[in-house]
Amino acid sequence: MSQFKELLTKRRSHYAIGANTDVTASDVAAALKEVISTVPSAFNSQGVRVVVVSGENNQKLWDLIKGVQTQVLDEGTLNYMTPIMDGAREAVGTILFFEDRDAVEAGIPGNPERRSVYKNHESANAQLTAWLALTELGLGANLQHFNIGYEQGFDRAIRELLDLPEAWELVAEMPFGSIEAPAAEKEVIAAEEQVILK
Amino acid sequence: MSQFKELLTKRRSHYAIGANTDVTASDVAAALKEVISTVPSAFNSQGVRVVVVSGENNQKLWDLIKGVQTQVLDEGTLNYMTPIMDGAREAVGTILFFEDRDAVEAGIPGNPERRSVYKNHESANAQLTAWLALTELGLGANLQHFNIGYEQGFDRAIRELLDLPEAWELVAEMPFGSIEAPAAEKEVIAAEEQVILK
Repeated sequence: MSQFKELLTKRRSHYAIGANTDVTASDVAAALKEVISTVPSAFNSQGVRVVVVSGENNQKLWDLIKGVQTQVLDEGTLNYMTPIMDGAREAVGTILFFEDRDAVEAGIPGNPERRSVYKNHESANAQLTAWLALTELGLGANLQHFNIGYEQGFDRAIRELLDLPEAWELVAEMPFGSIEAPAAEKEVIAAEEQVILK
Repeated sequence: MSQFKELLTKRRSHYAIGANTDVTASDVAAALKEVISTVPSAFNSQGVRVVVVSGENNQKLWDLIKGVQTQVLDEGTLNYMTPIMDGAREAVGTILFFEDRDAVEAGIPGNPERRSVYKNHESANAQLTAWLALTELGLGANLQHFNIGYEQGFDRAIRELLDLPEAWELVAEMPFGSIEAPAAEKEVIAAEEQVILK
């Protein structure tokens, strides 16, 4: 199996993550700088902006997210999500994925619906690329979508906390750290149902 | 540089593609079967369905797409896209990316807006994974989004041509084949603008 396919297979959602590793947030940022420009984007619009948050900022980030989620989630979901949020707070750091709306506006022609699809595709590609880069570093990570809602200002507090441009729309959060427990078993449907030759 | 990073760097949009290769559509389908179940999806909803089309079906597919596009594109865009569509027709084949709306409905809780975002993220992740798998096979590919519009029935003719389920929504088309010309130069913004450490 090639290294690429091995990475794909090893890339799983790790919710039990910690800080028991020598790999730093700075190492992660360096790895991302190597790969993020390879992420495909419609019309080469390059709207992805990635922020690696660690230390006190990472703790403030998750305090902020948890504060909001405590008010909006139902009890069952909150009970499920609390250890994930607490784990993220104490892990090595978090990759925040933004799309620069100015770059998207300037770079992608066409109607707003298509622009939104392309923007989401680029962000997802950046998320997967980053996740594989973390896997290559031996780290675990999971992917969350708290505070989606640029239009409604839901992500404003995070931009303000980190002093980020107004035009950056938050798409996803990827806390990362040492792998403290194996990933859960994953049920997959048969390859023959997902891939068809015609 | 690791094999993974090399693949990321080699993965480019190749518009000049042909059939001068021993790699078959069947080889491509086999490679996709190895990787497609590794693609992350929200709540493990696994809505991605991939169809590898080759030979006469591939020619019919691109005749169909070109027939529609000739009616809807402005002259400049049509002139630009015509060689890409003609090239796709004569290449080894095309990977069609669908999302099974039944799987998405059943697998992703929450409101329709969030479901749509997650669905697009999964499809984009499948597209990038497939593109890297093609790169690993030494093939070139490009990515198109003709006939987006399941709601409006724009993708119905393609489902009918290939006898695919009603619930499968077409998201993207990736024609692939031998690399007949190098990829164009690509301008990238500075890594420091895309990746920030906080």
